[in-house]
Amino acid sequence: MKNIVILGSTGSIGTNTLDIVQKFPEEFRVVGLTARTNLDKLEDQIRRFRPQLVALSDEAAARKLRERCQGMRVEILSGSEGTSQVAGMPEATLVISSIVGGAGLVPTLAAIRAGKTVALANKEPMVMAGQLMQEEAASHGATILPVDSEHSAIFQSLVGHRREDVHRLILTASGGPLWDLSLGEMQDVKPEQALRHPNWKMGAKITIDSATLMNKGLEVIEARWLFDVPGSQIDVLVHRESIIHSLVEYKDGSVIAQLGLPDMRTPISYAMQYPTRMPLELPSLDLAEIGRLTFFRPDHDRFPCLALGYEALRIGGTLPAVLNAANEVAVAAYLQEGIRFTDIAHVIHTTMEAHTPGRLSVLNDALAVDRWAREKAETLVHSLAR
Amino acid sequence: MKNIVILGSTGSIGTNTLDIVQKFPEEFRVVGLTARTNLDKLEDQIRRFRPQLVALSDEAAARKLRERCQGMRVEILSGSEGTSQVAGMPEATLVISSIVGGAGLVPTLAAIRAGKTVALANKEPMVMAGQLMQEEAASHGATILPVDSEHSAIFQSLVGHRREDVHRLILTASGGPLWDLSLGEMQDVKPEQALRHPNWKMGAKITIDSATLMNKGLEVIEARWLFDVPGSQIDVLVHRESIIHSLVEYKDGSVIAQLGLPDMRTPISYAMQYPTRMPLELPSLDLAEIGRLTFFRPDHDRFPCLALGYEALRIGGTLPAVLNAANEVAVAAYLQEGIRFTDIAHVIHTTMEAHTPGRLSVLNDALAVDRWAREKAETLVHSLAR
Repeated sequence: MKNIVILGSTGSIGTNTLDIVQKFPEEFRVVGLTARTNLDKLEDQIRRFRPQLVALSDEAAARKLRERCQGMRVEILSGSEGTSQVAGMPEATLVISSIVGGAGLVPTLAAIRAGKTVALANKEPMVMAGQLMQEEAASHGATILPVDSEHSAIFQSLVGHRREDVHRLILTASGGPLWDLSLGEMQDVKPEQALRHPNWKMGAKITIDSATLMNKGLEVIEARWLFDVPGSQIDVLVHRESIIHSLVEYKDGSVIAQLGLPDMRTPISYAMQYPTRMPLELPSLDLAEIGRLTFFRPDHDRFPCLALGYEALRIGGTLPAVLNAANEVAVAAYLQEGIRFTDIAHVIHTTMEAHTPGRLSVLNDALAVDRWAREKAETLVHSLAR
Repeated sequence: MKNIVILGSTGSIGTNTLDIVQKFPEEFRVVGLTARTNLDKLEDQIRRFRPQLVALSDEAAARKLRERCQGMRVEILSGSEGTSQVAGMPEATLVISSIVGGAGLVPTLAAIRAGKTVALANKEPMVMAGQLMQEEAASHGATILPVDSEHSAIFQSLVGHRREDVHRLILTASGGPLWDLSLGEMQDVKPEQALRHPNWKMGAKITIDSATLMNKGLEVIEARWLFDVPGSQIDVLVHRESIIHSLVEYKDGSVIAQLGLPDMRTPISYAMQYPTRMPLELPSLDLAEIGRLTFFRPDHDRFPCLALGYEALRIGGTLPAVLNAANEVAVAAYLQEGIRFTDIAHVIHTTMEAHTPGRLSVLNDALAVDRWAREKAETLVHSLAR
């Protein structure tokens, strides 16, 4: 039995993870949960899964939750420190890192420094400080396993094959909900339309990232650090049906790929029990029923964010953290209808241009540059505000 | 450096194997070659690769070759015994088994009994006597590695994953050159048309097997013995472009597949150097360039041979050897325009119906039933002769 902690348990990955826990009660015991503000859902999870330690980022929400859970055997912490304490709790062996955005950096690093096995769904920390995360994992004996469907696919296409034979990683991209629009049409796309992902049911932030293709830019950077492969050997392929989740090309011309119906429970469960697979009883992939799979090259004119991701990775240092922070600010502003869809790329690009990249050696470098970039991007957002 | 023997060196797999040897002279040394009758090509191969031992099935051809190779340091054997002697020669570590048809059974078994690593391109022995072959391999410490593109794909999709997690093997089939014809149109298809495979350049026998889908029936039986998976867990999927070479579905819904441009050098080289991959410098698979992959269910009305393969596997014992022998006779007759295309399935089915399946315990059982089925099928062919 594994003792698990879920960082961000009320989000899409968190609830999918708990679905799996519920299906396999002999395999997992929930010892810790964290959430940002959603105390209703967290309370429900506490009652169902009986963790010993939970944290809410929001202090007021934590106070309310403590009242509601009086008499229960659960300790309720708050704030960033509380979240990090849950991440590193001694009882846990497996930590599901599924906080949205850069807010996951500190708690994920806490789990790594505590030597846990970390199932990483939260890609932003790897984008902000991938090298640092891997160095910390190595020195604390932590294992990082990918949960993102694309990175899980790469991981599953690498096991059993020799790393020195890898020629190229190929991340697939659905193209998102706006793939068929012209650049002109994209300008005034409302969040409602951009949130309508054709294949995946995910949180709002990642769905907008998927619409801009920034998600793929972030994934390229994540892949670089997860698999220790340079950006020049990581390609992106648009594949509308999201059936082939990603591919690895080897030097003999052979390509190994992982496929499946789009269901996050498959990659989540693989990370939870690697190398064992769980009988999830999901519908079988029926390619004859699907009939055809289609593939396109990414379109950099309509989706400039992908190239920004590659650029940040090429320059390296603090620049990927700037890209990430600016993106978070721009996406939040877009979701509140403060800026236009096409402004997202503009805000990121302009913030990156304003930054003088430097080395990123310690956690504080990442946090400082993250703060700087958020302020810069906020200023830009206000200047664009409608 | 590996010392290699090629059984059937003048065929399509044999010449592709020698291409690889020529490209990597530090990795391989050719110590033995065998062919059926093509002495011109074999002589050329002897002069280029300097094997110490060769064999020609045909005694007269062997005599001629001995004259031509006077003064060279090569011993030239003949007949089935000569071929088996080359297969088991002590100097060899790796034997490429690429004789066409049931004729490969005895020499392939000789290589297995000599404890070699056998790269198996010759699927018919595995169809005729798969259980026996695996038992002999186990007791003589031989390793059998698949060369067929589909089985190589399955093999590559299994390494690194747990066998107990396998849910289903999915063999892809191009559908062959006649996929778009109606049953009526198929009746009078000339060999010239049936030999025009859309994706693969292969020998005549396997190309006709591909046109009838019998090739896939044989492959289902081969997969059953190569991977120790029951026929009920082996599916066939028609995939016109031959890019996905086969797939393995696991019990968590995840599917691992091997893809690549159709080039036999990739699976051949993988079997030759497993688990190392060779830098073949083949063109990269470019899915965006290809644009789409299509999938269909097999059509059992137009392609009855596939179901005959499943039926032979289900009944087991001597029946697969009967299926194989009848198919070889029927294909040979069709290639000589002695019977119609649709007669091939009829000859196989009728021969199978006439047979009372029994146990297949020793090599002689397979050879006896092979002889019986060939005679029976020949009689049928004559009765159908035009």
